[in-house]
Amino acid sequence: MKPYKEMSKEELTELHKELKKEYKKAQAQDLHLDMSRGKPSEAQLDLSMGMMDVLHGGVDLRDSEGVDCRNYGVLDGVQEAKELLGAMSEVSPDKMIIYGNSSLNVMFDTVSRAMTHGVMGSTPWGRRNKVKFLCPVPGYDRHFAITEYFGIEMINVPMTPTGPDMDMVEELVGSDEAIKGIWCVPKYSNPQGITYSDETVRRFARLKPAARGFRIFWDNAYCVHHLYDDDQDFLIEILEECEKAGNPDLVYKFCSTSKISFPGSGVACLATSPNNLRDIKMQLKVQTIGYDKVNQLRHVRFFKDINGIREHMRKHADILRPKFETVLDVLDRELGGLEIGTWIRPKGGYFISFDAMDGCARKIIAKCKKAGVIMTEAGATYPYHKDPHDSNIRIAPSFPTPEDLEKAAAVFVLCVKLIAVEKLLEEAE
Amino acid sequence: MKPYKEMSKEELTELHKELKKEYKKAQAQDLHLDMSRGKPSEAQLDLSMGMMDVLHGGVDLRDSEGVDCRNYGVLDGVQEAKELLGAMSEVSPDKMIIYGNSSLNVMFDTVSRAMTHGVMGSTPWGRRNKVKFLCPVPGYDRHFAITEYFGIEMINVPMTPTGPDMDMVEELVGSDEAIKGIWCVPKYSNPQGITYSDETVRRFARLKPAARGFRIFWDNAYCVHHLYDDDQDFLIEILEECEKAGNPDLVYKFCSTSKISFPGSGVACLATSPNNLRDIKMQLKVQTIGYDKVNQLRHVRFFKDINGIREHMRKHADILRPKFETVLDVLDRELGGLEIGTWIRPKGGYFISFDAMDGCARKIIAKCKKAGVIMTEAGATYPYHKDPHDSNIRIAPSFPTPEDLEKAAAVFVLCVKLIAVEKLLEEAE
Repeated sequence: MKPYKEMSKEELTELHKELKKEYKKAQAQDLHLDMSRGKPSEAQLDLSMGMMDVLHGGVDLRDSEGVDCRNYGVLDGVQEAKELLGAMSEVSPDKMIIYGNSSLNVMFDTVSRAMTHGVMGSTPWGRRNKVKFLCPVPGYDRHFAITEYFGIEMINVPMTPTGPDMDMVEELVGSDEAIKGIWCVPKYSNPQGITYSDETVRRFARLKPAARGFRIFWDNAYCVHHLYDDDQDFLIEILEECEKAGNPDLVYKFCSTSKISFPGSGVACLATSPNNLRDIKMQLKVQTIGYDKVNQLRHVRFFKDINGIREHMRKHADILRPKFETVLDVLDRELGGLEIGTWIRPKGGYFISFDAMDGCARKIIAKCKKAGVIMTEAGATYPYHKDPHDSNIRIAPSFPTPEDLEKAAAVFVLCVKLIAVEKLLEEAE
Repeated sequence: MKPYKEMSKEELTELHKELKKEYKKAQAQDLHLDMSRGKPSEAQLDLSMGMMDVLHGGVDLRDSEGVDCRNYGVLDGVQEAKELLGAMSEVSPDKMIIYGNSSLNVMFDTVSRAMTHGVMGSTPWGRRNKVKFLCPVPGYDRHFAITEYFGIEMINVPMTPTGPDMDMVEELVGSDEAIKGIWCVPKYSNPQGITYSDETVRRFARLKPAARGFRIFWDNAYCVHHLYDDDQDFLIEILEECEKAGNPDLVYKFCSTSKISFPGSGVACLATSPNNLRDIKMQLKVQTIGYDKVNQLRHVRFFKDINGIREHMRKHADILRPKFETVLDVLDRELGGLEIGTWIRPKGGYFISFDAMDGCARKIIAKCKKAGVIMTEAGATYPYHKDPHDSNIRIAPSFPTPEDLEKAAAVFVLCVKLIAVEKLLEEAE
């Protein structure tokens, strides 16, 4: 089929009629499908059911250092959990803090602490007139929600195929001392699935921030979340790069097992420099006596080591890969060559990012909804929910079954076409 | 034996010699005993080992409403956990939020949120010149650490046998609009084991705070932690009292299973009014996707209902009671009638509070340490670690074995005597 924009008004009108008929048929199916959130499916959760068994039957709940994990104590995590999640984070255990079930919570607390107490002795952000964050876009809605909640001004930085626009990042971070941080999902980014290039990571590690206490919030949420065994992205380890660059304290690196074991009952962690660790623990020891060590032990006993995690992630990939491919195949087949949208084929992570023609995303999502297919709401991938082009749509293929995904994707591409034709017809008026 | 202060200088000198000899003997035992923290003993932890078994073998991890507890979702806790902890908190499930493993963390977050965002629309505390908290003393060191961390000025309010001095509380709260909160452990208080009287609770519920957003931080940590089956303290439920008094939003009520199941791996909760819940959830939904629902389910499946908790607490009491009685018997036997210290016989909770003669606590604790017995550090039960009388010592009898406690208590009373005699001899100079 030829690109829509090369069609005559008559051709478009004819096409519009057809698509409307198809849409009515789609509505008649009375679908209730959801491609809105990056939730693992039941089959994926079943992979970790063995975790419920490793501590049963009165097994000893002491860690390798003899600590009774049932009792109070151990602020920063049991040693073998530091080793396991350290290996996953590609960082030595002594740079780790192991937390509770949510890395989002750790990020929230990190921003909250900076608001009330600053970063390593800097003025508390809450006492400053203006605090700003850089936000690579499209990005993760829950990151943006945290900075919005604290009244931090968010500045969009466009993503490129190699990561955020580093010229812009360097210029802004180097010149504006109100800029205190940047949100990054450096591997299989949410939503585009982009992995930052070596050069991007090196430029991050060599930033010269105008602001004291500027930090990179490096959310390595998808560090081991590959879709393919033989075609994986590689990300340079940033803490080591920072050390080499003489910038050891520049990064907070977050990670969790949420999309490895159970999303609600995993273990989160933070990797950072000794100076940052000291600064954080000053707060942590007031905030809690310690996190759930039994659950840390449960994870260690189940996965054993990083190889156990890798093997486990292959099983996740076996479930996720066909789902991604189902959606991508529908996109290729139905939208290829029409020039009414672009998308990226990710090699890992949880999302497919789709860019519709300008001004179409909101309408497409509304149209999908009326046909029983829930998509992530328009604008979600931008700070303040404002997509300046009203173009980006995040597709989350993990939760529905492949059969449902096939149906949902069919409705989605139909809506993309319909809204595109309507836009072109309007322009032809 | 007659009261020390009625002894002549010669008698005291003779006694001092004897006590010093005894102390040398005690030192020669090379003890390593710890009565410093309210940690459950191994035998107590063993009571909950069945919790490790209730979810094993592939049991369904859906809650009563069909929610898959393994996955993301459910911000404020699974329904049956609200019911279980609601029953424990004596509050209806719809007034509950179920959190992670630490009520201390919930309290920290509650203060932190008030610092950055205020309370139900009030000015954020962090934007005010001065914020003050009332602190009934002696009290819980970790409460005071939170308010100190946030730079909140703490004002001591003396405890009485019926709770905090309510005349003072009413006057201060009613007149000083910088006073934004008060820390309370209303039942089997830490460290005295005092339960607030009906009148005290009613006066709390009827407070007329000068400050908008004033809140009572009601840490009901020992709500079901009785030592005796047939001799229990009773505490009026404060949220209902507040409603009756037309003050529904006055209280945050905290609770947890830390000293019921596993201290590091329990479930914490907050009970409060619908208005407060709404205010809190505005933050909570930004801070996390949800807490560990599998652990919530684990607790419900293990305890089943409030009767299960009560029965379980009887087993704890059976272990704790002899320990308390061991220490109390030593105190009675060795210090009774000497008029060099006072103590309270608690009916529940985790501590025995001892008041030495003024100016003696620090010295007693140091003396104990040199004989191998670690006590909670002097001043710990007061804000800023400043006990104005240098008199209060918190004894935590839960962790050591009864045999060790016997030895530790013997050293303790010996040190109390020794320091008292030295004080009296000094005064006699």
